[in-house]
Amino acid sequence: MKEEFTYQKMKEPVITAVRGVKAAAVHCGLKSKKRDLALLHSEKDCVAAGVFTRNRVQAAPVKLCRDRITSPVRALVVNSGNANACTGEEGMQKARRMAELTALSLDISPEQVMVCSTGVIGKQLPLKKLEKGIVNAAAALSGEAKSARQAARAILTTDTVAKQVAYRGSFGGVTFHLAGMAKGSGMICPDMATMLAFLFTDLTISRPLLQQLFKEAVDRTFNLITIDGDTSTNDTALLLANGAAGAAEITAGSPPCLDFARLLEEACRDLAYQIVADGEGVTKVITLLLQGAPDPLSARLLARAVLNSPLVKTAFYGEDANWGRILAALGYAGVDFDPSGVDIYLGPLQVAAKGEAVPFRESEARLILKQKEIPILIDLNAGSYSLTAWGSDLSHNYITINSNYRT
Amino acid sequence: MKEEFTYQKMKEPVITAVRGVKAAAVHCGLKSKKRDLALLHSEKDCVAAGVFTRNRVQAAPVKLCRDRITSPVRALVVNSGNANACTGEEGMQKARRMAELTALSLDISPEQVMVCSTGVIGKQLPLKKLEKGIVNAAAALSGEAKSARQAARAILTTDTVAKQVAYRGSFGGVTFHLAGMAKGSGMICPDMATMLAFLFTDLTISRPLLQQLFKEAVDRTFNLITIDGDTSTNDTALLLANGAAGAAEITAGSPPCLDFARLLEEACRDLAYQIVADGEGVTKVITLLLQGAPDPLSARLLARAVLNSPLVKTAFYGEDANWGRILAALGYAGVDFDPSGVDIYLGPLQVAAKGEAVPFRESEARLILKQKEIPILIDLNAGSYSLTAWGSDLSHNYITINSNYRT
Repeated sequence: MKEEFTYQKMKEPVITAVRGVKAAAVHCGLKSKKRDLALLHSEKDCVAAGVFTRNRVQAAPVKLCRDRITSPVRALVVNSGNANACTGEEGMQKARRMAELTALSLDISPEQVMVCSTGVIGKQLPLKKLEKGIVNAAAALSGEAKSARQAARAILTTDTVAKQVAYRGSFGGVTFHLAGMAKGSGMICPDMATMLAFLFTDLTISRPLLQQLFKEAVDRTFNLITIDGDTSTNDTALLLANGAAGAAEITAGSPPCLDFARLLEEACRDLAYQIVADGEGVTKVITLLLQGAPDPLSARLLARAVLNSPLVKTAFYGEDANWGRILAALGYAGVDFDPSGVDIYLGPLQVAAKGEAVPFRESEARLILKQKEIPILIDLNAGSYSLTAWGSDLSHNYITINSNYRT
Repeated sequence: MKEEFTYQKMKEPVITAVRGVKAAAVHCGLKSKKRDLALLHSEKDCVAAGVFTRNRVQAAPVKLCRDRITSPVRALVVNSGNANACTGEEGMQKARRMAELTALSLDISPEQVMVCSTGVIGKQLPLKKLEKGIVNAAAALSGEAKSARQAARAILTTDTVAKQVAYRGSFGGVTFHLAGMAKGSGMICPDMATMLAFLFTDLTISRPLLQQLFKEAVDRTFNLITIDGDTSTNDTALLLANGAAGAAEITAGSPPCLDFARLLEEACRDLAYQIVADGEGVTKVITLLLQGAPDPLSARLLARAVLNSPLVKTAFYGEDANWGRILAALGYAGVDFDPSGVDIYLGPLQVAAKGEAVPFRESEARLILKQKEIPILIDLNAGSYSLTAWGSDLSHNYITINSNYRT
């Protein structure tokens, strides 16, 4: 018997929409004024799925989360303003201490606490400040939307807006939820779990299946965005399922499992897009549909080369239909393909055919390039594989932000 | 018997210093006002060595030069303002036509003419203008320094200064020369023959040996510079030897051959450095000494990741000793290494030890970062291989230049 699985986006996209999930955010002093410590708590044990940075240099909290991903999880403590990366054994001890303090305040065990940090690399965390912050945050935990919004803002660094998403659905007549928050504005590059993203659902699902579905969703969404081609030391995406909705278990291969996978990809894509749109100095979001590729890896490498090219990115910033730069970037992606098969479109406007110029009206191109969201289609005409990836332009403001970040 | 091989840099670094080499430059109308066509001519046949872009998208003149590299060469015609790339069969015919017209004007055969183009991608060359320009340039050929300087300027695009180098030497009592010119300011990335570089020598040497020595020199110099990580469709480096000095032949493995290889590397490094220093929007040149690497390829990938990272580059622009970004870039270079072995120095100042922070005075770092040339040392402590690579910062002006290039 097929159990119906339906869902829709919620107007108020807060993580506390998920049953049994509470949130809090406080200022503990890592940033000068803003809230810089978020705490998320589930009243029931969660199975956890996680995807982490593939950077060889991994922050202490990333190592901690990796180690604990197979245990039941009850809480997640996140600080901004300091990445706790390149901090050696002392940093590792501090990450563990953050988990212990959180566990103490919530009367759970330290193994049930995940820890994430984001901010400057190479500075030791001021533990005294965090200790006080964690105690205050635990006391402030609440299921109200306001707390969730504050938590979503507390995890930001150079981001200008909070990134949130929430869905309410029905599975076999039982109401369920999936909600998430994310941060990330610089050091964003595809092909790994980029940035921080935390999602909760009150559905019931086994850990291996949750991990598999989450990995697939992350690969098609977060791992296909780029802002500057720099991969962070702290990237972490976590999905926690606490079963609080009381719905039937989602089982591998079932129709509801396919529906849930689709929902998960939609939620991740939504957060990923929000990250690109709020990228450092971003004035345009480029949605690249690459089709006709011979295989998935080639498609990924080609999309990444185009969206990471400073020349392509500055051309979009300048609203210049300089398609030659796109073709040149494809050419150095390290993929064997025939340039004379490539068609390129800006929106509906074809600008190159078979690797050469086609006549087009500059005025028409300019209308398309003036928009905040620019769709590009590249057809390699070399196979049947396609993907969509998201990137941004490169503006004066990116330089301003990043030449003044640490000091 | 060892034949003495000595050399020194010339104060007037012009390509016409090489015996039998003449130069000319004219305005033919590809650029609005500046000279845009250069012609270099050797009175004697030259053996030619060439290294070309590895971009899958290759401009028509690159294909032409590749095909002709094993033939004796007498002339080189170069236009700026139009790259003749992504121009299909029509572009190929125009590149061949440029060689034919040059051959006609100089009374040599078309196979003896190399053709290079640089500028905008994806526009067809206006052949009428080039025809007239080539005739005028052939008539203007001269051995005077002024003509060489004009030619060095005529090949530039967004470059702000001409790049030239010249050496005079003595080999077995005979005076010889090596001189070159180069262009390149954007679309500059290591690990391929980047940009345009033309060198002449009046020494006598076989083509295979010349090719081998040139390839080695290019790999250690031009292929280890980066400005923006974008690899051009037109990159070409040519070295032509006409034997006009009348010195003994340089033979493989001989002491003079080692001396010549050293001279060649010095000349290429000089031009490569000039390219980085004049890179688009560049305010700082970063000289990166990467040591303690396990193998040459790892060293190259690590150096490239650091020097191409927008976050590292903007930190240098902002004169910010943000070494965490350097370590993060090493981490995603795709090389297996232990981050906890890495030491980093800015000039003489150690800023990280064993992958972690060491205390240093910000004021001291600032003094080093205020300089136009910034030496960085990264020691992986993981092997015995080292290399030097050159990069630049990323400034507001890079964005300005490249968001307004085509239009």
